[in-house]
Amino acid sequence: MPSKIILDCDPGHDDAVAMLLAWGNPEIDLLAVTTVAGNQTLEKVTHNALSVACVAGVTGIPFAAGSERPLLRQVEVAAEVHGESGLDGPVLPEPNIVLDERHAVDLIIDTVMAHEPGTVTLVPTGALTNIALAVRKEPRLLERVKEVVLMGGGLHEGNWSPVAEFNIAIDPEAAQIVFTAGWKVVMVGLDVTHRALATDAVRQRVRAIGTSPARFVDELMDFFAKAYEHNQGFDAPPVHDPCAVAHVIDPTVVRATQMPLQVETKGLLTTGMTVADRRAPAPADCPTWAATDIDPDRFWDLVIDALERIGEPKAD
Amino acid sequence: MPSKIILDCDPGHDDAVAMLLAWGNPEIDLLAVTTVAGNQTLEKVTHNALSVACVAGVTGIPFAAGSERPLLRQVEVAAEVHGESGLDGPVLPEPNIVLDERHAVDLIIDTVMAHEPGTVTLVPTGALTNIALAVRKEPRLLERVKEVVLMGGGLHEGNWSPVAEFNIAIDPEAAQIVFTAGWKVVMVGLDVTHRALATDAVRQRVRAIGTSPARFVDELMDFFAKAYEHNQGFDAPPVHDPCAVAHVIDPTVVRATQMPLQVETKGLLTTGMTVADRRAPAPADCPTWAATDIDPDRFWDLVIDALERIGEPKAD
Amino acid sequence: MPSKIILDCDPGHDDAVAMLLAWGNPEIDLLAVTTVAGNQTLEKVTHNALSVACVAGVTGIPFAAGSERPLLRQVEVAAEVHGESGLDGPVLPEPNIVLDERHAVDLIIDTVMAHEPGTVTLVPTGALTNIALAVRKEPRLLERVKEVVLMGGGLHEGNWSPVAEFNIAIDPEAAQIVFTAGWKVVMVGLDVTHRALATDAVRQRVRAIGTSPARFVDELMDFFAKAYEHNQGFDAPPVHDPCAVAHVIDPTVVRATQMPLQVETKGLLTTGMTVADRRAPAPADCPTWAATDIDPDRFWDLVIDALERIGEPKAD
Amino acid sequence: MPSKIILDCDPGHDDAVAMLLAWGNPEIDLLAVTTVAGNQTLEKVTHNALSVACVAGVTGIPFAAGSERPLLRQVEVAAEVHGESGLDGPVLPEPNIVLDERHAVDLIIDTVMAHEPGTVTLVPTGALTNIALAVRKEPRLLERVKEVVLMGGGLHEGNWSPVAEFNIAIDPEAAQIVFTAGWKVVMVGLDVTHRALATDAVRQRVRAIGTSPARFVDELMDFFAKAYEHNQGFDAPPVHDPCAVAHVIDPTVVRATQMPLQVETKGLLTTGMTVADRRAPAPADCPTWAATDIDPDRFWDLVIDALERIGEPKAD
Repeated sequence: MPSKIILDCDPGHDDAVAMLLAWGNPEIDLLAVTTVAGNQTLEKVTHNALSVACVAGVTGIPFAAGSERPLLRQVEVAAEVHGESGLDGPVLPEPNIVLDERHAVDLIIDTVMAHEPGTVTLVPTGALTNIALAVRKEPRLLERVKEVVLMGGGLHEGNWSPVAEFNIAIDPEAAQIVFTAGWKVVMVGLDVTHRALATDAVRQRVRAIGTSPARFVDELMDFFAKAYEHNQGFDAPPVHDPCAVAHVIDPTVVRATQMPLQVETKGLLTTGMTVADRRAPAPADCPTWAATDIDPDRFWDLVIDALERIGEPKAD
Repeated sequence: MPSKIILDCDPGHDDAVAMLLAWGNPEIDLLAVTTVAGNQTLEKVTHNALSVACVAGVTGIPFAAGSERPLLRQVEVAAEVHGESGLDGPVLPEPNIVLDERHAVDLIIDTVMAHEPGTVTLVPTGALTNIALAVRKEPRLLERVKEVVLMGGGLHEGNWSPVAEFNIAIDPEAAQIVFTAGWKVVMVGLDVTHRALATDAVRQRVRAIGTSPARFVDELMDFFAKAYEHNQGFDAPPVHDPCAVAHVIDPTVVRATQMPLQVETKGLLTTGMTVADRRAPAPADCPTWAATDIDPDRFWDLVIDALERIGEPKAD
Repeated sequence: MPSKIILDCDPGHDDAVAMLLAWGNPEIDLLAVTTVAGNQTLEKVTHNALSVACVAGVTGIPFAAGSERPLLRQVEVAAEVHGESGLDGPVLPEPNIVLDERHAVDLIIDTVMAHEPGTVTLVPTGALTNIALAVRKEPRLLERVKEVVLMGGGLHEGNWSPVAEFNIAIDPEAAQIVFTAGWKVVMVGLDVTHRALATDAVRQRVRAIGTSPARFVDELMDFFAKAYEHNQGFDAPPVHDPCAVAHVIDPTVVRATQMPLQVETKGLLTTGMTVADRRAPAPADCPTWAATDIDPDRFWDLVIDALERIGEPKAD
Repeated sequence: MPSKIILDCDPGHDDAVAMLLAWGNPEIDLLAVTTVAGNQTLEKVTHNALSVACVAGVTGIPFAAGSERPLLRQVEVAAEVHGESGLDGPVLPEPNIVLDERHAVDLIIDTVMAHEPGTVTLVPTGALTNIALAVRKEPRLLERVKEVVLMGGGLHEGNWSPVAEFNIAIDPEAAQIVFTAGWKVVMVGLDVTHRALATDAVRQRVRAIGTSPARFVDELMDFFAKAYEHNQGFDAPPVHDPCAVAHVIDPTVVRATQMPLQVETKGLLTTGMTVADRRAPAPADCPTWAATDIDPDRFWDLVIDALERIGEPKAD
């Protein structure tokens, strides 16, 4: 039985790949896609999410826009990583999908509450603002959600500051709400995503598929590669967000270890850091897990397979 | 034309008086009542709100329950001030009002959006959790709400800590969201509410009314007086929350001064403090105001008048 | 028997007046003067201290330079209040006094330890860096010092930020060390010093004395008046620092009340605030006191009297 | 030419080994030993330092006691690691060495200032309180000290909290002063010291020496092994402090990498963490370095060699 997920994202190059992986993989039942300000403004990432859905032929599920800003802090976007559009590189099609009228928070709540308890996984790949608001508005989510598998954080490295990763750093209070809510949280952080590199070999496999979604991904990777090389000196770009989806598909591809995790919200140098206590094995009832290993080959196999399954979507 | 208000409260003895003042005063059009955890748990304060409505014959408006806990922090209640029920003292009638199915956050949003822009005033008399969630979920509230007139804070005194007042201290992050959102905020704090004392003279006037709502208020004040005498050495109890309603009714009864206000969320000694900058006159576009003066006699006249107008509600 | 004091200062216009008051008043036995960076750099304020001593004919006591920067934070000076020299206005004589070779911290320690226990009062009128270092280096000061009577802080107003006064704000960690050390601390803050105004009437009395120290004070006040009018809109300048000396001379002139006091070091808006708990009377063993009242007339009588006693010092 | 060092320590089992290594190694010229509260109270660690000196026949250098508490925080000791005495295990000889009358801070300052600029290395193996006080009291140390090679911190692991090491955690403000002072700082942290394990093979080599100092070390390791096994599940105890001395002797045994380092002083979860920015190579003028590698065999060769050179000290 496929895993039911809600993808809460801010596309974003790697968010786009995450959506394609979720849509194309037969082990995932994508119930809904929601958006949140992060890599770019809410307006832009929502537009991008719909464009990506059009490219991949994603149909039959609701899309809803969510929070236009973090809980407490001012909006920060990552234009130097994702460009002015948030998805620079390919030409984006004008989306023909109509947004759900509900706020992302309500779409998340309604979707979870409409399914059997313990069957829906939340997969946030952006700031955790929507998820935090959802669990505060509807505390029963804590019992209803199967787990939260999020892309964000690290052990103990950062990209937005010395020890904070972007998704957590831009809304650390929301992240702390999510990490300490009591439900199962799997943090898929920089330790593994920095090993999910779109190398030349990977990109040749993508190009060999020959479909328009594969070309779209290749064009995304082209921009992303240049941005990461220019900003952080990477030889190949780390494709963070699909790692969270991959963990849901197969936890042996992206492996996680149980450990106490919290988010620092008050440090002068460390705000947005995901703090793990690795001094001793976690207690058995510890609800938080961190991804600690990835098999990059099998990860990319999943992405390639999903693109092949998506094939060439029919134009509407 | 009366002022349309939504009362967001956590009854609480003084919240009850605030509801009675809002219901009985002809200058107030009470649109809805919402509840939030604070003086007691959400379940208890929601029950209390409905009980008070029954006592006063409040009908024809929706009541909705809201947040059961603060944004980030653990629940703290004030049982030593308001008792185990949150409204100790009188016998509470079993309410015959059915709660609105919506979350308080949605009732607030729907109500504001259903009225003309700039016509609805929010009057929170508890923690600001619901208001913060509402404005984050629906940012258009910023343009639609007329003003937020809240009971909380002080210049620069406290009751829950040396410099923090209870409503702000229990959810300082929500308070900071509300204070800095950009809309007009009037903070009615301890500086004035500590002068709104239910003295013996006041209580004699209440008793003289002779109706069951007046008796109910007298019994509330009886418990409240003992709690305040015991805990904080007051000769007569300060009846905080109706001061916010009184400001909406007549800003010459509870006067406010424009001044920059923010909420400290990180201090070791000062978290939950409402910080005013009084070093110079506020700039003309400063959206925050603090109550700086009250006319206690005219304030109590308003309360007595409201009780008289409410009279003896018909039993349903 | 006169009170033995060590004046730890950063002249500074009002520090200069404090030194003159301490030197001229018969109830004060000025044992030593030490300096600390604050109103201006250490080099400048040390030079100024010696110049003031020359003007007033202060002889026979050691002067020592202390900390050139706060414990943790970067140096901040108040050039807009005290000018580039730290003592703008009068022409400063070139001092003919030789500095003690010891660091201020050691001069303070040696002086206190050389006198009978409980006989020496420390009177800091600048940042508390030297005092904090001294008590950390020589913890026996805690038993040896009679009390620390400092100019700084407020209840709960500020001048350097909305709720922090300059002397505390520039080195809040040092201040927290001093306030919580366990010895008796009397905080003479803005609440009283803002009432120690050098009005025209006061300045006429000063000028009428006709000596060169009085002219020097008048010229200081001339600059200070303009700075305070320009920066903060005062009609007459508050002469902060001698208020601490005045409390030592006569605690009925500057009255203090026992209350718990601490210094906020972590707040976003409140760092450097002196936090008093006034919710209840202080416990009998509370070691901290705050000045709460001043008799301005008697305060200025003390200053005038000191200037008259100083008279016209002999040129060396 | 040997490296001149001042050892500032809180013996402490591994501090004792550090002193023996410094005393026995011909590349080190041990100028002075100072003490600071940490592993145990100042009184105990000072007594222990003198006892260790007696065991090893350390003569001809001054010993001085320093800070009995951290700058701002309350004293915390590590009795569960080092026992009630701070040096539990062997019978400690009653020391026959007389303490220098100076405070450690003054001994450090005087010693550095008495030698050629750039020739004296400070080697703190405890809290950084003395070093911080010294550089604040005598800022010329910044130009006079060759480097500060300290045991403390980690990248980014902890032992006293999830991400803070004991020496830094107990006085983070002092540590931040030292790390950001501008002089060269080499942090020898848990990353390398957790690989300096006193394994059975190591301990056999120690025992084989057969002298009383070697027996003393063996008895120390016996207690230390049990404490680390019991508290943290180590198979063999990490002998932290001599790693700093080893870096001074031979920087190829304990290798360091230039990287920006600071100390978090405000975090809720991270206070006392040494925060490194490893996102990019350090700028050429970066004054801070972190140990990133150790050759354990050569490290223990240095310790064994020192013990052999010390031989059997003559009883006085």
